[in-house]
Amino acid sequence: MKVTVCRKEHFNAAHRLYNPAWSDEHNTEVFGPCANVNYHGHNYELVVRVTGEVDPDTGYVYDMKLLSTLIKTEILDTFDHRNLNLDTTDFRNLIPTAENIAVIIWQRLRPHLAAPLGLSVTLFETERNFVEYHG
Amino acid sequence: MKVTVCRKEHFNAAHRLYNPAWSDEHNTEVFGPCANVNYHGHNYELVVRVTGEVDPDTGYVYDMKLLSTLIKTEILDTFDHRNLNLDTTDFRNLIPTAENIAVIIWQRLRPHLAAPLGLSVTLFETERNFVEYHG
Amino acid sequence: MKVTVCRKEHFNAAHRLYNPAWSDEHNTEVFGPCANVNYHGHNYELVVRVTGEVDPDTGYVYDMKLLSTLIKTEILDTFDHRNLNLDTTDFRNLIPTAENIAVIIWQRLRPHLAAPLGLSVTLFETERNFVEYHG
Amino acid sequence: MKVTVCRKEHFNAAHRLYNPAWSDEHNTEVFGPCANVNYHGHNYELVVRVTGEVDPDTGYVYDMKLLSTLIKTEILDTFDHRNLNLDTTDFRNLIPTAENIAVIIWQRLRPHLAAPLGLSVTLFETERNFVEYHG
Amino acid sequence: MKVTVCRKEHFNAAHRLYNPAWSDEHNTEVFGPCANVNYHGHNYELVVRVTGEVDPDTGYVYDMKLLSTLIKTEILDTFDHRNLNLDTTDFRNLIPTAENIAVIIWQRLRPHLAAPLGLSVTLFETERNFVEYHG
Amino acid sequence: MKVTVCRKEHFNAAHRLYNPAWSDEHNTEVFGPCANVNYHGHNYELVVRVTGEVDPDTGYVYDMKLLSTLIKTEILDTFDHRNLNLDTTDFRNLIPTAENIAVIIWQRLRPHLAAPLGLSVTLFETERNFVEYHG
Repeated sequence: MKVTVCRKEHFNAAHRLYNPAWSDEHNTEVFGPCANVNYHGHNYELVVRVTGEVDPDTGYVYDMKLLSTLIKTEILDTFDHRNLNLDTTDFRNLIPTAENIAVIIWQRLRPHLAAPLGLSVTLFETERNFVEYHG
Repeated sequence: MKVTVCRKEHFNAAHRLYNPAWSDEHNTEVFGPCANVNYHGHNYELVVRVTGEVDPDTGYVYDMKLLSTLIKTEILDTFDHRNLNLDTTDFRNLIPTAENIAVIIWQRLRPHLAAPLGLSVTLFETERNFVEYHG
Repeated sequence: MKVTVCRKEHFNAAHRLYNPAWSDEHNTEVFGPCANVNYHGHNYELVVRVTGEVDPDTGYVYDMKLLSTLIKTEILDTFDHRNLNLDTTDFRNLIPTAENIAVIIWQRLRPHLAAPLGLSVTLFETERNFVEYHG
Repeated sequence: MKVTVCRKEHFNAAHRLYNPAWSDEHNTEVFGPCANVNYHGHNYELVVRVTGEVDPDTGYVYDMKLLSTLIKTEILDTFDHRNLNLDTTDFRNLIPTAENIAVIIWQRLRPHLAAPLGLSVTLFETERNFVEYHG
Repeated sequence: MKVTVCRKEHFNAAHRLYNPAWSDEHNTEVFGPCANVNYHGHNYELVVRVTGEVDPDTGYVYDMKLLSTLIKTEILDTFDHRNLNLDTTDFRNLIPTAENIAVIIWQRLRPHLAAPLGLSVTLFETERNFVEYHG
Repeated sequence: MKVTVCRKEHFNAAHRLYNPAWSDEHNTEVFGPCANVNYHGHNYELVVRVTGEVDPDTGYVYDMKLLSTLIKTEILDTFDHRNLNLDTTDFRNLIPTAENIAVIIWQRLRPHLAAPLGLSVTLFETERNFVEYHG
């Protein structure tokens, strides 16, 4: 009897989409205003889904307070109120698109969850643009 | 050609997370303020998903008005404006966590749907805490 | 140059609408299922609005982090994960309707704000039922 | 490493549910007020999901600006501010239920996406009634 | 001690913006796709606000269940699942813009509320376009 | 017969709260992580309200398509996908708090509206922090 528990958190960050292997012109061609040299930013909404058996003693798959704490420690403490390009090591050599941020978040959380638990991540960059990663 | 139709409903209920096999101290340790002896409550938002073939005569998989009525009869009439611990038989011996409530809702609806139809349930306890159950 | 700053918080609570001066029958007649003897509950969403001059040194009317802390200390620490009828003194002799809860919240916050600041409170009991109080 | 990118768009349209093989009475019996001869309408919210590998040069699965443009060209330019029954060829012989509209949208988009990309469509007819189609 | 109680309801309707005193060309010039001869439609979200004294016996300004019933009887039964131009008398000689619909709703509700009660109406035509009328 | 028409738009921007008259330590003390030297960012949601008489020929107070265009030209073209501190002249000597951004937006829009029209601005920095300015 597998159930998925979901916790929604958010963080505010600046970022810029830029491929250093390309000219500035080509970056603007591909990324448009997202390549702006002085950055722009987003309220990222993050949904983390953990799938597993319900523990009969607690009725929990995974205590959502602990899931919230895990997300805070592993993700928000590093990304919230930061510049993803300049203030984190994750995006030193990786373009901080929503796709790549979701994969990084998944990779940061995965080692902290027991092997039988399933994990997936949804990241909203805006209300109209979002991505999902299931590992 | 399988399509999933989804209907969102809500109910307001009081509940308390408490395992009678444990001491009050251990309950508070595990469940925190959710163990409050006098209960607290939520606006539960419920999404019921039914998957099946589209009927060529109606263009419907399952008439959403009938789905709404089914949810009302089988779920809302029992859970809405109630105390889940005291006023229902479902949670006499089952802790009313979001996980367990979602499973009970799925079990209550399943017998009313024809066998070929798929069923899944999403239950929002708050905007930030929610669960999914696919049977 | 007056600006209004608004902070949204939430709390989860159980309550019951019941006038002890009336018979049970009359309570049910007036309050319907909201009079349920074992309580029901809500995710209350609270918006607190503070109006005042913008401080030229900070660009703030009132630091929203401090406003959040004030709401936590004066409101959430008392109401969140509680039974409003049983666990608070505010509603010992007052029916905890959305109207009365909003007035109590306003009265609890008012003494903590400097006299020139304006204060108003919006309280959502559900997404479709909400109240506003301006003092 | 497959990621799903999602783009939300909307269109406003009139429609009517009516099966010409049936009497007016039977249409009203099945479709209720949705059969109203003079039409009614909705703000349709559409989520298009595209699944594929992340391009290491761009960090994109599919540029969401291009996805937005594709949805505009193939869907919104035809459906937005239109009467689905009268102004489109898609629903000349097909009842414009949410199920059928979602399938048509999927069929209109599919040829414009490279074969390895996955495609699914969620269509909200109202906040409480929505459908999903995965092809 | 005046409090405002607010009730949110919705209705789905078709409409068309068209001034019969103008040529078709001028209508299209002014109203764009909203002038489409075959209509389009919306999920209208309606918020009705009633301001008054809190009754000490009930803790209510105005019972929101009764407010919901009043809105249903006076507004939804006439406008929901209808064509505003063709199926109502209100817009026989009045263009059904959001502005005019809000005024009509206010005028329909006003006679049913006691004189000391304040009334205002907010009408969302889409999530991004809405109007407010205070009488 | 005055009605208020409201248009919601959004822009994504980076910013930093920093008073150059203060030490870095005092900036961090006052602004916390919002003072981060490399900026952070937000999805700003902007609601512009225009109040006036309904034109009997159009049923409009102010054509919302034109209001949308005005907001685009005067606000979004300058603020969207920009760094408010570095890329705009408005915040060269003004801290880009939500309060100050709302006032600037109001001042930028006011000259473009006829004198009898009322104007107010609501700016959401996050879903939980927002400000209102009425001029």
